[in-house]
Amino acid sequence: MADQMRVERDLMGEKKIPKQAYYGIQTMRAVENFPITGYPPHVELIRGLGYVKKAAAMANRDVGALSPNIADAIIEAAQEVIDGHLNGEFIVDSIQGGAGTSLNMNANEVIANRAIEIIGGEKGDYIHVSPTTHVNMAQSTNDALPTAIHIACLKLSSGLIDALSGAIEAIKEKEAEFDDVIKMGRTHLQDAVPIRLGQEFGAYRRVLERDLKRFKQSVNQLYEINMGATAVGTGLNAMPEYIDNVVGYLQELTGHPFYSAEHLVDATQNTDVYTQLSSSMKILSINLSKQANDLRLMSSGPRTGLNEINLPPRQAGSSIMPGKVNPVMCEVVNQIAFQVQGNDQTISLASEAGQLELNVMQPVLVFNLLQSFTILQNGLNVYREYAIEGMTANVERCRELVEHSVGIITAINPHVGYETASRIAKEAISSGRSVREICVEKGILTEEELNQILDPQDMTNPGVSGRDLLYRDRK
Amino acid sequence: MADQMRVERDLMGEKKIPKQAYYGIQTMRAVENFPITGYPPHVELIRGLGYVKKAAAMANRDVGALSPNIADAIIEAAQEVIDGHLNGEFIVDSIQGGAGTSLNMNANEVIANRAIEIIGGEKGDYIHVSPTTHVNMAQSTNDALPTAIHIACLKLSSGLIDALSGAIEAIKEKEAEFDDVIKMGRTHLQDAVPIRLGQEFGAYRRVLERDLKRFKQSVNQLYEINMGATAVGTGLNAMPEYIDNVVGYLQELTGHPFYSAEHLVDATQNTDVYTQLSSSMKILSINLSKQANDLRLMSSGPRTGLNEINLPPRQAGSSIMPGKVNPVMCEVVNQIAFQVQGNDQTISLASEAGQLELNVMQPVLVFNLLQSFTILQNGLNVYREYAIEGMTANVERCRELVEHSVGIITAINPHVGYETASRIAKEAISSGRSVREICVEKGILTEEELNQILDPQDMTNPGVSGRDLLYRDRK
Amino acid sequence: MADQMRVERDLMGEKKIPKQAYYGIQTMRAVENFPITGYPPHVELIRGLGYVKKAAAMANRDVGALSPNIADAIIEAAQEVIDGHLNGEFIVDSIQGGAGTSLNMNANEVIANRAIEIIGGEKGDYIHVSPTTHVNMAQSTNDALPTAIHIACLKLSSGLIDALSGAIEAIKEKEAEFDDVIKMGRTHLQDAVPIRLGQEFGAYRRVLERDLKRFKQSVNQLYEINMGATAVGTGLNAMPEYIDNVVGYLQELTGHPFYSAEHLVDATQNTDVYTQLSSSMKILSINLSKQANDLRLMSSGPRTGLNEINLPPRQAGSSIMPGKVNPVMCEVVNQIAFQVQGNDQTISLASEAGQLELNVMQPVLVFNLLQSFTILQNGLNVYREYAIEGMTANVERCRELVEHSVGIITAINPHVGYETASRIAKEAISSGRSVREICVEKGILTEEELNQILDPQDMTNPGVSGRDLLYRDRK
Amino acid sequence: MADQMRVERDLMGEKKIPKQAYYGIQTMRAVENFPITGYPPHVELIRGLGYVKKAAAMANRDVGALSPNIADAIIEAAQEVIDGHLNGEFIVDSIQGGAGTSLNMNANEVIANRAIEIIGGEKGDYIHVSPTTHVNMAQSTNDALPTAIHIACLKLSSGLIDALSGAIEAIKEKEAEFDDVIKMGRTHLQDAVPIRLGQEFGAYRRVLERDLKRFKQSVNQLYEINMGATAVGTGLNAMPEYIDNVVGYLQELTGHPFYSAEHLVDATQNTDVYTQLSSSMKILSINLSKQANDLRLMSSGPRTGLNEINLPPRQAGSSIMPGKVNPVMCEVVNQIAFQVQGNDQTISLASEAGQLELNVMQPVLVFNLLQSFTILQNGLNVYREYAIEGMTANVERCRELVEHSVGIITAINPHVGYETASRIAKEAISSGRSVREICVEKGILTEEELNQILDPQDMTNPGVSGRDLLYRDRK
Repeated sequence: MADQMRVERDLMGEKKIPKQAYYGIQTMRAVENFPITGYPPHVELIRGLGYVKKAAAMANRDVGALSPNIADAIIEAAQEVIDGHLNGEFIVDSIQGGAGTSLNMNANEVIANRAIEIIGGEKGDYIHVSPTTHVNMAQSTNDALPTAIHIACLKLSSGLIDALSGAIEAIKEKEAEFDDVIKMGRTHLQDAVPIRLGQEFGAYRRVLERDLKRFKQSVNQLYEINMGATAVGTGLNAMPEYIDNVVGYLQELTGHPFYSAEHLVDATQNTDVYTQLSSSMKILSINLSKQANDLRLMSSGPRTGLNEINLPPRQAGSSIMPGKVNPVMCEVVNQIAFQVQGNDQTISLASEAGQLELNVMQPVLVFNLLQSFTILQNGLNVYREYAIEGMTANVERCRELVEHSVGIITAINPHVGYETASRIAKEAISSGRSVREICVEKGILTEEELNQILDPQDMTNPGVSGRDLLYRDRK
Repeated sequence: MADQMRVERDLMGEKKIPKQAYYGIQTMRAVENFPITGYPPHVELIRGLGYVKKAAAMANRDVGALSPNIADAIIEAAQEVIDGHLNGEFIVDSIQGGAGTSLNMNANEVIANRAIEIIGGEKGDYIHVSPTTHVNMAQSTNDALPTAIHIACLKLSSGLIDALSGAIEAIKEKEAEFDDVIKMGRTHLQDAVPIRLGQEFGAYRRVLERDLKRFKQSVNQLYEINMGATAVGTGLNAMPEYIDNVVGYLQELTGHPFYSAEHLVDATQNTDVYTQLSSSMKILSINLSKQANDLRLMSSGPRTGLNEINLPPRQAGSSIMPGKVNPVMCEVVNQIAFQVQGNDQTISLASEAGQLELNVMQPVLVFNLLQSFTILQNGLNVYREYAIEGMTANVERCRELVEHSVGIITAINPHVGYETASRIAKEAISSGRSVREICVEKGILTEEELNQILDPQDMTNPGVSGRDLLYRDRK
Repeated sequence: MADQMRVERDLMGEKKIPKQAYYGIQTMRAVENFPITGYPPHVELIRGLGYVKKAAAMANRDVGALSPNIADAIIEAAQEVIDGHLNGEFIVDSIQGGAGTSLNMNANEVIANRAIEIIGGEKGDYIHVSPTTHVNMAQSTNDALPTAIHIACLKLSSGLIDALSGAIEAIKEKEAEFDDVIKMGRTHLQDAVPIRLGQEFGAYRRVLERDLKRFKQSVNQLYEINMGATAVGTGLNAMPEYIDNVVGYLQELTGHPFYSAEHLVDATQNTDVYTQLSSSMKILSINLSKQANDLRLMSSGPRTGLNEINLPPRQAGSSIMPGKVNPVMCEVVNQIAFQVQGNDQTISLASEAGQLELNVMQPVLVFNLLQSFTILQNGLNVYREYAIEGMTANVERCRELVEHSVGIITAINPHVGYETASRIAKEAISSGRSVREICVEKGILTEEELNQILDPQDMTNPGVSGRDLLYRDRK
Repeated sequence: MADQMRVERDLMGEKKIPKQAYYGIQTMRAVENFPITGYPPHVELIRGLGYVKKAAAMANRDVGALSPNIADAIIEAAQEVIDGHLNGEFIVDSIQGGAGTSLNMNANEVIANRAIEIIGGEKGDYIHVSPTTHVNMAQSTNDALPTAIHIACLKLSSGLIDALSGAIEAIKEKEAEFDDVIKMGRTHLQDAVPIRLGQEFGAYRRVLERDLKRFKQSVNQLYEINMGATAVGTGLNAMPEYIDNVVGYLQELTGHPFYSAEHLVDATQNTDVYTQLSSSMKILSINLSKQANDLRLMSSGPRTGLNEINLPPRQAGSSIMPGKVNPVMCEVVNQIAFQVQGNDQTISLASEAGQLELNVMQPVLVFNLLQSFTILQNGLNVYREYAIEGMTANVERCRELVEHSVGIITAINPHVGYETASRIAKEAISSGRSVREICVEKGILTEEELNQILDPQDMTNPGVSGRDLLYRDRK
């Protein structure tokens, strides 16, 4: 068994490492120190580190700081990280002390050991390729990791943008499909005035379009990176031409229009790009949650609720109540919204806790940020596919509720004044009779006039319903 | 005009003070530094400071540190603060830097100047009575102010306890009144199984009873005070016998069973007693908000909603829709709940920001805490009086919804199995026919058996409805 | 006494109103229903309502719906509201049920009664001018109030933009002033590598510049208004030409480039413009809080802390500790940040609670939003004037700390490799000796080489310090 | 390949299931519907469901509702779930719509299929044992799942209680060890008055003791369970004797003193027991975060910070700065605190979103709650072992800072008055001289008197330092 382990040393002592492992002593220390969540780093974050290490090796080679054979081995190893072949070697916890140094060290060690193998050496024989001197050359955790985070965020953002765009499209189709479904509008959950179901879906579409715009604005800030900032943003140990090169290589490798931060000290210590991304997702989640609530309300019933729309049935709704079907796809959207809002809270706290030259709370911040991207994307995809696309309207039921309502009195308002209208409404509600009936009986308006005023379609567009009557009255 | 001002000096320079003002230069500096919210300190906090200063003067006199004539003047002036006669002299902002030193200084100056007047001197002539050396003797802001905060919290807690108890009583009455109103229970907003409206109100009562208990547990911790801790909790400049005396006098003056904190350094730097109070109010607010949502839902309509209950109409609901009445008392409860939760957020942030020997963020913490007490108390009182007490049930409507529902199929479940029951339910929903009808038609159960199984009252209590039939089947 | 009251009636009954009062029965009902916070509506919100009512009367007059003499009286009365002459008549609570109907009604009644007076009638004699039929003509609370809110937000935003711009300018001056102050950079609160104090202030400036940009982006959305949406956004009772006119008049009266919302149903039910404003203020507050924390840390001492900078003394820092001066202006910034974050929480909760056609939780949302604008503006102004502008650096102290530090070892790293450098650092820390001394003693680098490598100014800019040596070595 | 799948059917259609799988069609539907987080249910929650299903089968058998051979097979299968042998079969996502029905169904299906195997049937042949009719007999998700959650919470709470108790013990040892380390107390990060390091650790201990008490109070509420409540709390389909039995069996199987909820409708819809647990963890996390901040501050340096204490070095602190060691164990505590606070936010939102008879947002609520237990326990264990136990004090450095400070002037205050003391302090600070020197030079106090007054040990306990002198003066 002993021969299946190798021994590595640092200034604090030595550690046994499984012989086959690409990670090394700093990773082992981190695993011992941080057995917190059990969740490994997000795969896109690992991939992001692969890109950073590859680009740095290329840039260091070009400026003559890294010998070509070491550089080539590092580049090859980093590409394997990008390709996801070494994901299992990234074993540090998502929540870790040390501002992510452990994760950066994990990457440095994995790449160094793989590069050593490529060169023909034995894992752990860092004389060939050193995790710090070579793989981490001209870098600090404080620039390498944020850059990798930006790469990961861009990848996940793109998925979220697609999912959100898809949901918007699906809602748009319902907006058109439901354009002539007249139904009762409600404010305060109380009967208000008629509206078309398509108008409601138009409102759902519009707010999500703003969410999409907001999110994209946040994403654009990710192109500014701080590679070359090194430890505190001053760029100590990073030659200017290296900085130019590394940013260029990152553009080339990822296809993103990265550029060097205007003020590297700023870019190293401030995390507002993340809080803005999280805020835009929080606002999106609030809007989605409101929408999911509306759909759950409108689909309530089938017999003792509003029953205006039907969500596609997706699974048995109860282990005890036969035949029950629940709006589960909306409920999961609500829950994702709550999670994203909780994540935003954690992200805000972590952001505020930065001190002086660095925000050391980035691991928990990034853990939550990447989760928000992921679950929103996943949630939007199933919400679109399983809740929106198959939704239908109960057109007759909707119309009946309008005709049965008292709220249409509002259209009569301009013709008789608010005070008279109030008395009619009150009588209608307490007697259970219709507004129309009372108006005619009391000689307030004729049947003919009422037909003109109470046209449901008219009532759902700007304008005074029965406007001609009004001007006639005025004459 | 100039002669209507007096000049006061401190180490930083001099300031003009309105001649009639009881406050002095430190108050003026604070007013200049902190023009933030425009809200003066809560009157109960001012009163709390009055008690603290009075008790301290008595205790300092007793241990011989304060000469009796100065002590007597301070005691008299402090009593005027307690009586609210000098509220207008407390002009520092509710949000202020400096851990509340400005507020404590404001109290010291007001009491000193009033005491000087009592003695026969001129305001500002601190040779007679010094705000710091005399009024603040053996105190620091860091023990005097927290003690005053405890006094204020106890006063406001008491009002909240009364308001919550009142609401619980009112709900209890509705629980009894509605005990035999059979209605449809809903889960996921979908038709579930019958329940009694009284049972629902029983649930509302029970959770508030736990809230009351939780809140009282939090309040109990307020009796531990840190008077005598002075600057950092070590008690420097506070003689042990003074500490005993001052706690005793505070008991006597306020009627509260105060006792000296077991560990004064702890009591001076930690603010968990406040976060716990706020948490218990946050939980209460969450529960109230859920309840208000339920009432708004059940009273939705009148024509196109659930319309199961009627909330007392309180005001015209719309400036455009005549006759509209909204559940405004429930809506204000929701909004208070949101405010209390936001306040809890601020309180948590302020609490976490304590450093070493002191939490200097106490002003904003206390501002939010006292507001939460106040608005919850106010909200609960009007909620009870204007929403709960006059609420009525639409008994017929409730019964109809039950009879019309498919959810009663659950009671049939034990008699025919989940799978068969599911098929019946599905057919009922899609055909619009009743469960009863389908059962009989298909020969699954007889009318007689169904009568036994589907007894609505039976269905709202533990037990298998039609249990005898079940055992007969098994024979 | 009785004759000092007038009686008003509505469908629910009658109420006595003080004879001199411009408000009426609906306002009285609201005062009775909502004795919650004791805070009246924000003056800018009242002013906003004045503009809305004035513009609506003008537009209604133009389309012939309102007779010119009534219109003129309403216009004159509304102008008095704009001018703040009737603020004392706005007595409904900031937190109120009913989506702000009470506040809108309060405005309608005040303007109606003032218009009646202008016309020559008696207050309460609504036959002349009706609060609903005339003042509220073609409006609903659901479009009139949001429009007024937008006007109020724009006014307050402008003040906040000025305050933030001022703070940025002041920081920029310090950035220049401190450009050559070399000091120790710290990450994890541990000694890192040298940095210039000016660079730190540059980072503070940059992040606030982004905050300003973010905030302005949010503000731009306020120009989209929903006047004419009426009750649910369908525009019922609002003639298209009225809508055009009212938006035009609002542009003219306020000077803002208002335009009609693309989708009125959306604009009436969604509140994301507010959540985005609040989010941008939350992010600003997080950044300010981090900055205030840094300043408090750097000014800690004077004898037992870092003591790198001096904040201007603003007031005596303690009622017990003579001569103590605290960083009170930074502390108040922290507290404002906590308040703004708590407010954002309340705003988020309120936003999510919208249902169907309306968000009835807008009163509490707006209360918090307007407070955030106000306290941030106030806080930034005093922070700039009393904390930043007079700040000085302890140049000698800063330099000493750098020279005394071990962190400069990082610059030696590229010359000797990470592993060797680590051993030197460890020995320096444990022995208390200097890095320089150990390097020379062990023959690792010469004095001359060290002079070149350890040039403090060099270390604060991108590049490998002593780069020539490096390439020499490579040869 | 086709023959490696079996087909299952429900009312919505059919699904292919891997032949070897114990889960069935409802699980498959849930997997399709909810691909959200990728995290499976917490293992303790699975175990909890095992206990519930076992106890229910025993109770159903005893009341004669379940035939003994089916009951026995279910009991055996449920025991395998308890033992963790079937964890891999629980594949539904942690965040799911449907109030946890999917998870309950997953458990029902796994146990049914395993029971079928035990009986000798084929998986999927539910004629032998039905997931709903048999395994879920007399249960609903709405009582079975909450009961399982309580069991899981109790298990995890116990681990957290141990971890917190351990941390308290470790801090207590440091309290004793550091009892005579005199150091400077600081308020506002500014020099205040002397304190002993042991006193500071006493404060850390005390607040955690309250946290422990608070947490235990919350945990006690978990013994109240709602088994037998079924769908909405009315107990439909659950015979009273079954309810008694199932609670009794759960006591027996788990060793917990469970009892039946006083009001089953309440217990089914309200989630305050969870919000209280989360609140108590939030408060704990706030206190831990403050403490971690203090330790990071006191250990700052080593050369350019406070450097009063030494945290045990745990790993290399930087990939670029050789020899740097960071307070990583404290930093991870901060991050866990932020996560717990974010989780509390999610939990609060989910709790508030309950409607009528059920809170369908429990999956996300429970996901966050169980995570908070876990990460706090994990974090406290490593914090104790790796941060607290090996901590040492820099006694000399602490003493020097006290002697060097101006804050000791406070002790002189009672002897000379606040105003005189302020002048001395100001002169000391501006001149850089010592308080002692100035007092003597100005003839304010003699060296002898100063020796008596400025005794550092004396200054850290209640009392006026040099009290005898004071009374002598008064004579």
